[in-house]
Amino acid sequence: MNDLWIVSEDSFDAKKQHHKETVFTIGNGYLSTRGAFEEGYPKDHRATFVHGVFDEAPIVFTELANSPDWLPLQVLFNGERFSLDTGTVEGFERSLDLRTGLLIRTVRWSSPSGLKATLVFERFASQADEHLLYVRCRVTPEFAGMVEFRAGLNGNMNNEGIVHWHWVAQGEQDGVQYLHNRTRTSGIDMASAMRVDSFGGREVERAVWDVENSPTLMLRLEAEPGRTVGVEKRVAVFTSRDVAADAVIPSAIQHVNAGAGWEAAFAADAQAWAADWERTDVVIEGDDEAQISIRFNLFQLLIAAPRHDDRVNIGAKTLSGFGYRGHAFWDTEIFMLPVFIYTAPHIAKNLLNYRFRNLPGAQRKAQGNGFEGAQFPWESADTGDEVTPTWVPHFADRTKLVRIWTGDIEVHISADIAHAAYQYWQATGDDAWYIEKGAELILDTAKFWGSRAEWNAEAKRYELNDVIGPDEYHEHVDNNAYTNRLAQWNLQAAFDVLAWLREHAPAKADELIARLDLNPDRLATWREVIEKIYLHIEPSGLIEQFEGYYQRKEVNLAALEPRTKSAQEIFGIEGCNETQILKQPDVLMLQYLLRDHYTDESVRVNYDYYMPRTDHTYGSSLGPSIMAIMACDVGKPDDAYEHFIRAVRADLRDVRGNAGDGIHAASTGGTWQAVVFGFGGLRITADGWTTNPRLPHNWKRLSFKFFHRGEIHTVDISG
Amino acid sequence: MNDLWIVSEDSFDAKKQHHKETVFTIGNGYLSTRGAFEEGYPKDHRATFVHGVFDEAPIVFTELANSPDWLPLQVLFNGERFSLDTGTVEGFERSLDLRTGLLIRTVRWSSPSGLKATLVFERFASQADEHLLYVRCRVTPEFAGMVEFRAGLNGNMNNEGIVHWHWVAQGEQDGVQYLHNRTRTSGIDMASAMRVDSFGGREVERAVWDVENSPTLMLRLEAEPGRTVGVEKRVAVFTSRDVAADAVIPSAIQHVNAGAGWEAAFAADAQAWAADWERTDVVIEGDDEAQISIRFNLFQLLIAAPRHDDRVNIGAKTLSGFGYRGHAFWDTEIFMLPVFIYTAPHIAKNLLNYRFRNLPGAQRKAQGNGFEGAQFPWESADTGDEVTPTWVPHFADRTKLVRIWTGDIEVHISADIAHAAYQYWQATGDDAWYIEKGAELILDTAKFWGSRAEWNAEAKRYELNDVIGPDEYHEHVDNNAYTNRLAQWNLQAAFDVLAWLREHAPAKADELIARLDLNPDRLATWREVIEKIYLHIEPSGLIEQFEGYYQRKEVNLAALEPRTKSAQEIFGIEGCNETQILKQPDVLMLQYLLRDHYTDESVRVNYDYYMPRTDHTYGSSLGPSIMAIMACDVGKPDDAYEHFIRAVRADLRDVRGNAGDGIHAASTGGTWQAVVFGFGGLRITADGWTTNPRLPHNWKRLSFKFFHRGEIHTVDISG
Repeated sequence: MNDLWIVSEDSFDAKKQHHKETVFTIGNGYLSTRGAFEEGYPKDHRATFVHGVFDEAPIVFTELANSPDWLPLQVLFNGERFSLDTGTVEGFERSLDLRTGLLIRTVRWSSPSGLKATLVFERFASQADEHLLYVRCRVTPEFAGMVEFRAGLNGNMNNEGIVHWHWVAQGEQDGVQYLHNRTRTSGIDMASAMRVDSFGGREVERAVWDVENSPTLMLRLEAEPGRTVGVEKRVAVFTSRDVAADAVIPSAIQHVNAGAGWEAAFAADAQAWAADWERTDVVIEGDDEAQISIRFNLFQLLIAAPRHDDRVNIGAKTLSGFGYRGHAFWDTEIFMLPVFIYTAPHIAKNLLNYRFRNLPGAQRKAQGNGFEGAQFPWESADTGDEVTPTWVPHFADRTKLVRIWTGDIEVHISADIAHAAYQYWQATGDDAWYIEKGAELILDTAKFWGSRAEWNAEAKRYELNDVIGPDEYHEHVDNNAYTNRLAQWNLQAAFDVLAWLREHAPAKADELIARLDLNPDRLATWREVIEKIYLHIEPSGLIEQFEGYYQRKEVNLAALEPRTKSAQEIFGIEGCNETQILKQPDVLMLQYLLRDHYTDESVRVNYDYYMPRTDHTYGSSLGPSIMAIMACDVGKPDDAYEHFIRAVRADLRDVRGNAGDGIHAASTGGTWQAVVFGFGGLRITADGWTTNPRLPHNWKRLSFKFFHRGEIHTVDISG
Repeated sequence: MNDLWIVSEDSFDAKKQHHKETVFTIGNGYLSTRGAFEEGYPKDHRATFVHGVFDEAPIVFTELANSPDWLPLQVLFNGERFSLDTGTVEGFERSLDLRTGLLIRTVRWSSPSGLKATLVFERFASQADEHLLYVRCRVTPEFAGMVEFRAGLNGNMNNEGIVHWHWVAQGEQDGVQYLHNRTRTSGIDMASAMRVDSFGGREVERAVWDVENSPTLMLRLEAEPGRTVGVEKRVAVFTSRDVAADAVIPSAIQHVNAGAGWEAAFAADAQAWAADWERTDVVIEGDDEAQISIRFNLFQLLIAAPRHDDRVNIGAKTLSGFGYRGHAFWDTEIFMLPVFIYTAPHIAKNLLNYRFRNLPGAQRKAQGNGFEGAQFPWESADTGDEVTPTWVPHFADRTKLVRIWTGDIEVHISADIAHAAYQYWQATGDDAWYIEKGAELILDTAKFWGSRAEWNAEAKRYELNDVIGPDEYHEHVDNNAYTNRLAQWNLQAAFDVLAWLREHAPAKADELIARLDLNPDRLATWREVIEKIYLHIEPSGLIEQFEGYYQRKEVNLAALEPRTKSAQEIFGIEGCNETQILKQPDVLMLQYLLRDHYTDESVRVNYDYYMPRTDHTYGSSLGPSIMAIMACDVGKPDDAYEHFIRAVRADLRDVRGNAGDGIHAASTGGTWQAVVFGFGGLRITADGWTTNPRLPHNWKRLSFKFFHRGEIHTVDISG
């Protein structure tokens, strides 16, 4: 451990408001709250997202509903309302302690009439009790008179203009104000209950402002110069996903009253966080930016990770922004899940169980497309049905729409999920789970591939045509190497599963064979597909990303530097499709996932070929961490470092300009993989594990822990 | 005059909630407020629409923003909140007085704990001062204790889930609470200021609940059995369309404080209404339903009619609902405008000026389509650009979209507007307006038609192909009779305008000829088009609705009765297109507009042919009033009555099941035309006017007034 745990800023820049709201998101795996200010501003993007609380939305089908706001806390000095927009800000500091999730803001402010005070706002979402949220404000006035606090719950929230909540009821009971809302179409009930205590000064007035959908407690405290006064606000949140709909109010009231005060609650929170970090922390010495950044990335992943709910997943923007509407992609299985598999297997299991629970949605999708088995949706929300928007408005011509194809043809996700299930099992040795759930995930996706593969009678081979690989600059391609090879792997894994089940759980084998109709004909087809699926590899080991890739136009990407746009923006969707430029390197991704199946030479050949063809800066945010790993693999740790640092800066420095939409979740997971599997060179084999450290030249030490088959191991590498 | 002025109900049915909100809409030509209840319910469609306050919206481009709510007024008895959802409703009555726009609701209610009281809610939007709104509640308790009132302003409004407002500021000044909001994309500022006075009992407590975006005044009055207590709430509304943005708050505060108290304000309102009704009222004796209905229809038109603003129009649902998003269609010029031309020419002028002001939008549309002159948008909002949604989601298959073609090819609206300008001039003799504005409307639309007409070299004729006529069951038709003939009329009117201008305003003639480039070649083309445009009339006088109509499938519509769906729902969009079934009778519409150009025999032939082919019940709500007029024309007043009564019931009885979306504005205007031009047989000619009464057998008397060339005339017909 070292001291690099604090993400901070020492001034406020309104132009970076939304970016910083993302950076200063707090959460506890049940919900997250963006770093908008307690007092509220008209154009802030304040949001609290609770896992699983989806509601219908135009175009995107469904989205995580921005929940009733628990944060409102306004402060007035002799009637003048504190705001960064008025008066004079004489000092500003904000810091997030990644160790505990405590967000602190200190402002020295002079009101328009000249009343000065120092305000300290603090908040945390309890990791010890995920239904409890705390916010506190301490004010040290330099004047005499009155400090007024207004603490509220606000149901008037929306998702960038879309309203998801009806008001249902509100009231007061046992000294607690509560608010009850319901989502408009999905009918999820949510109750928030609030308790407010003052300290440090005499309470001159206390009133409940029972305004519909915005119950507010108003407290006036006597102010005298130099004496700190304040309020502590504690909120409990329950939804009808947690308890019965008619129990949300009593649960919230009971919980907030039973909850501890600030000091004890914060201690419990810190303790829970300490246990998380004990497993998860990565120590890097000699590189302060890398150290703080990797912790920040892990923190963002941890606050979005469901500890006690296996009906939810982590969206592509975690719970930290409106981007991608809370939908989950392959980003989870390929980028985030390995972090949990190796540092928090209980969370990894929850995430995989979400996929298992959503097999019916995947089966509906396969059936709707004329296939069999489980075809997982490209974007997944509450029901597991496909929720990728089909059409989105054209950015320039308002009478036009752009067709989004990923939901139709970016099929590799089904194999990605199967691969993740296998990886979880391999790493944890969790046979019970594998028998009960993992096996079916692999078998049912294999069933999909068996039905999806097309026989080309002329070429005498199986093909997967008209797909999109991970590199989304190329749509409607045939025989994408990543997709074909992963599909083959999935089918092969199905045979391995069956063999293993027959030995270790014969009844389950029989049950699955019967239920999924894994008859000899079907298995024979699978064998055919495995043998005859088209996989083009040059004698040199170079893999063509898809059929015809070599014929696409070569572009000298380096010659376009410096640029501030993606290659797709420069060349257009169609134009980019005709070039060899990659959004992210499919083939390297494939070699990373199935590393044992490729020689070092083949990896080097493909790295050298695809690296200069990849849009590293403005292509996919998923690319840089994989590039970093593969650069390590070919013995170029300093090249790797360049990619790695690009990945860790995605949100902290907003290098892509879109961090305001939320955390780049895949990148957070990817950075951990780059450190552990790239720089650390950790390799898990059937027999155990090895490391092959390739540290950047400035790193003096790298240390991390990981679980393998139930045991925790520590790796400590000196540079 | 007679006593049939009150629209009322004597019980509350939650299933009809949204329909009744439409029926009990009040307004004053500046804004309208739906008849949602003061105390508020989660699923009410409460809305206040202020003319011209548009804001961007998905799919429909822009919509009238549901404004901050001025209505909230909650009542509590010893802490128990009055609600129709709880306790027992022992009596309920609601009535709207069409004479004055006063809406009254009387409820006898017993609280859950058994506290009984009678509550009387009243509201009106002042016609005397359109920025002022009044709501009052009188409570007669049957218990002792406390009656609490909570009067608020609420900026947390949305349009069926779409948020249009940011909060900007709020506060208290001169005993007035104010709220300042701004539309999210169009940046229109709105301030509401509220003053609340109590009466009848001792005020025990008065507090301002200064909750953000929902400032509320709480008042507690001592209650004793049998003594009536209450509050009167007065609200002023100003937007940055009325005054400078930084003046909206002071204007609202000053105005609400300067405003009269209830009694005086209501007297002024009633006086203003009396002046309106003096011009507009229609008296029907012998038919109470017809009498109350025609007044209701006129009332709805009057409350949506801009008295002091010529930058706005009346939407297809007036200001009374979310339907059609406040967009204006041809419904204004063809259905509503004649009412104003003949009863309130100052309003008619405002509405036509809106079109004149929006000529640049119409020119942009023409240019965008490769045409010249002014092509008016099918749907028009604030800028005069086309705002018809291009695509709407498919009702069943969420991956599909339905293309809406009216904005592209329902071109007749440009001729409809020209025709309305001409009609206004003819009826009013307003030469100054004609010279300044009307002439240009006719010339610039003629320019459009001259460029739009296509020369068919083979048939040696001009054609207008690929259009939609008023009958929208038939899309993409060629040579629609209505469109071709109105285009021809428009071009001919242009020559008449030029000749008239040369004589009466030669400088203006020169200016327009130069500015619109009305060169000899262009005029020669116009003459060609007038002569050679395709107009197919059978020797019998029958007009084919469009080329190939006779070849469409005949359907026996009568055999489908009774039905509860439109023909389009029964046969599908494509299927219906292939039949002869009409949404509304184009050809009869044409003959109505250009009646002097057709013989009585031709009208009879077309009536007999098209009447049975029209979907009267679930086709267009615009059809029945026109059918009524033409039935009168062919001497069938009792058939006419059947159509007329269908038209007047559209909203009062919700015969189409969609009155909850707002008033059928075209139908309201059509019913007046049916009474005056149909049953009354009023005909305006170059020499003066005549009537040719054809009253339904049960009507004992029909009386109405109309303006002609600045003079008001009274028609009084005995049955």
